[in-house]
Amino acid sequence: MQETALSALRARFGEAFSVSAAVREAHARDESRLDFHLPDGVLHARSEQDVVDALALARQHRFPVTPFAAGSSLEGQIVPVHGGLSLDVTGMNAVLGIEPGGFQATVQPGVPYPELNRQARRHGLFWAVDPGAEATLGGMASTNASGTGAVRYGTTRDNVLEMRVALMDGRMIRVGSRARKTSAGYDLKHLFIGAEGTLGVITELTVRLWPLPEELLALRCTFPTVREAAECAVLVMGAALNPERLELMDEPMIAAVNRHLGRTYPEQPTLWIELAAASPAALQDALEVCRALCLDAGAQDVATATAAEERRALWEARHKAYTAMSAQYPGHAQLSTDACVPLHRLPDVLDFTRQRCLDRGLNTSFVGHVGDGNFHVLFHAPPDDHATWAAIHATYDELMQATLAAGGTCTGEHGVGLHKQKYLAQEHGDTLDVMRDLKRLFDPHGLLNPGKILPDPAG
Amino acid sequence: MQETALSALRARFGEAFSVSAAVREAHARDESRLDFHLPDGVLHARSEQDVVDALALARQHRFPVTPFAAGSSLEGQIVPVHGGLSLDVTGMNAVLGIEPGGFQATVQPGVPYPELNRQARRHGLFWAVDPGAEATLGGMASTNASGTGAVRYGTTRDNVLEMRVALMDGRMIRVGSRARKTSAGYDLKHLFIGAEGTLGVITELTVRLWPLPEELLALRCTFPTVREAAECAVLVMGAALNPERLELMDEPMIAAVNRHLGRTYPEQPTLWIELAAASPAALQDALEVCRALCLDAGAQDVATATAAEERRALWEARHKAYTAMSAQYPGHAQLSTDACVPLHRLPDVLDFTRQRCLDRGLNTSFVGHVGDGNFHVLFHAPPDDHATWAAIHATYDELMQATLAAGGTCTGEHGVGLHKQKYLAQEHGDTLDVMRDLKRLFDPHGLLNPGKILPDPAG
Repeated sequence: MQETALSALRARFGEAFSVSAAVREAHARDESRLDFHLPDGVLHARSEQDVVDALALARQHRFPVTPFAAGSSLEGQIVPVHGGLSLDVTGMNAVLGIEPGGFQATVQPGVPYPELNRQARRHGLFWAVDPGAEATLGGMASTNASGTGAVRYGTTRDNVLEMRVALMDGRMIRVGSRARKTSAGYDLKHLFIGAEGTLGVITELTVRLWPLPEELLALRCTFPTVREAAECAVLVMGAALNPERLELMDEPMIAAVNRHLGRTYPEQPTLWIELAAASPAALQDALEVCRALCLDAGAQDVATATAAEERRALWEARHKAYTAMSAQYPGHAQLSTDACVPLHRLPDVLDFTRQRCLDRGLNTSFVGHVGDGNFHVLFHAPPDDHATWAAIHATYDELMQATLAAGGTCTGEHGVGLHKQKYLAQEHGDTLDVMRDLKRLFDPHGLLNPGKILPDPAG
Repeated sequence: MQETALSALRARFGEAFSVSAAVREAHARDESRLDFHLPDGVLHARSEQDVVDALALARQHRFPVTPFAAGSSLEGQIVPVHGGLSLDVTGMNAVLGIEPGGFQATVQPGVPYPELNRQARRHGLFWAVDPGAEATLGGMASTNASGTGAVRYGTTRDNVLEMRVALMDGRMIRVGSRARKTSAGYDLKHLFIGAEGTLGVITELTVRLWPLPEELLALRCTFPTVREAAECAVLVMGAALNPERLELMDEPMIAAVNRHLGRTYPEQPTLWIELAAASPAALQDALEVCRALCLDAGAQDVATATAAEERRALWEARHKAYTAMSAQYPGHAQLSTDACVPLHRLPDVLDFTRQRCLDRGLNTSFVGHVGDGNFHVLFHAPPDDHATWAAIHATYDELMQATLAAGGTCTGEHGVGLHKQKYLAQEHGDTLDVMRDLKRLFDPHGLLNPGKILPDPAG
């Protein structure tokens, strides 16, 4: 960034604009820790007007702007690879209103979803998308994040009603509607959801809240093989049990969790299922149907947890899988895949991928939102172990080929960012030009989070 | 259309291209019967290649193309107001495949959704969006249609996984994914859904199917006032009962249904609720919760229907409301509104609208997908009764003002077409220019269904 730009930012924003090394470093990498690039400066935006004015200065001085919130992205989305301004919206963290009768809340983009849940609970409602970490609503919309709740409640995309978006040309627009459904003209809302801040900056969201389930219980079912666990997941989805959550963990992942959290779960492929009902009787009923189904499918051990305590413990274990793996291999770099396939193809694609990992002697673990057909392979190795990383990337390539051949997608919930552009080109090569046209339309000078999503046409 | 264009179409398509008066007239109006305009010719497309070639000829000879399927649109979407070619895809009516384990089906755009349901039922699955009539999947995607199932299963938008779209420049693109969720790049799928054939022509869809509910029952609850019925709907939605359907009909509508179908339903404001569960016990349970809730909310008479026969009879009555009204007033023209508001605002907006109708002595009826906050006012009057039509349009304007003030939308499920452009401008005035940019991007010569959705910038 040129001195003129820096002083213009200082002049407009004063203390809220920082070029200190510590602040810049705190905005140079995301949770994947795969990339590091310093912004030239960081703006702690406090209002929509701050965002609008920052974009105006970017337009005038031609510097890149990379929106930043919790920094919990996994594909480098918030890393300012071309420098410029890191636009930090974590200070825009007000829950502006909750309408219990409308099942909706209006929030600023920097609100962490656990905070929204704390406030919604009073009304017997909750925000149903739970990617983990302290992800913010703005960040979740920008990557279309999901998590364990998506199998029942959909992804962030399905739960955003309306947004206010600051465009690069200075316009503020409102997209979507606070009504539950609309057919009013071209759907712009879904264009900005999942755009990773490359088309506009989200400054406000009205999101859908759901009634808290009356009665809940969790099942932990172990299986002899991952395939049998995955096939059971297909059966559960077909039984109209409508589970709240349906997760798979493989043996190494359970082992890591046991070590990290001091648990004693059987170290076998495991399905974790959460069921809800409006009454204890109905819940008991659903449990019996589900238990019978799992046993028919080859489950060896079916444990149930009804007390809130036990259930919390189970889901803590699931949510800490990623950190459990890192803890087990200090100093290793980690890489998580995010394939999502049509449910009926999941057992084959899982099997294939695990086999290729074995063939290559890769020490990996699998965890999956298998009710959605979405699973993550957690690769890890010492950063400088080039042979292993070559094997990892070769396996990743094969997984992607199998996924796309199965009609799936290279990313179910993490987004493209810096690392999936090659796979995006394989998945949507026929529409990359359309996507580039849209990028040019909203950001003709390529200043909004440059380097993300779209592969360089040259490369 | 010029003679050169007509002969080019004849040369390419032979018998499949028709200029006969009868065929053209069959493509000149939709179900609303508010508009009539003849196309210059009609192509009965049989394949994706037919569509691609038709667009190529349109490009070459600069004639308009208006996609046509069931013709059941309600806002004139399929009326070729600028003449040109009516592109009839009803011949593209093959269910290409059903993947039971993937909960999805791949269909051509001309497949009527009841036909998809006939074929899916064998697998214990169904397509959950039911706008009524013999609507096709392509048409439903083009208007983002919904209906009584949306409260539980979402709209067409929520149930389309992947589409193939023919673009005006000759490209065929695939948008979306067959996976349940994806974060792979800009979401183009949602841009074409609800675009009413103005951005491209849908040639294939892969859609989501749902497991048929195990146990079902329907409730019919009468209330002293429409407000109490609407307020009860809000309570039902809050109780996590997750109803399959939640519909409201007012007294005149029930009366019309009684007369038209020879029923004897109490002619009072009525909520029709369908509940589902995985077991009879669970269903009984849900019924008790729901019944108690309705009685607390002021329900006077709660009748339940468990037998498939009775339930079919109930929903037949609901689905035939529109025709019941027409039958009652032969020779009258009808106009249906389609407001959708956040649920907590529904009672007020309903009350306000009914009051304005009374004030003006308008003889109307109300029916609503109230679980979504969506309701229809059915206006009717003799076509030449200009005074009444002026009063109707004045009331419509007031309803739209109240709807938009409540954070709602001018159309929940019918789309914009020819008749809601004024209201679209009121609802999304800040984004009309963006929508026009998108239209220019995909259809620079304005040949795809011209005259729909976007108001003339001049006007």
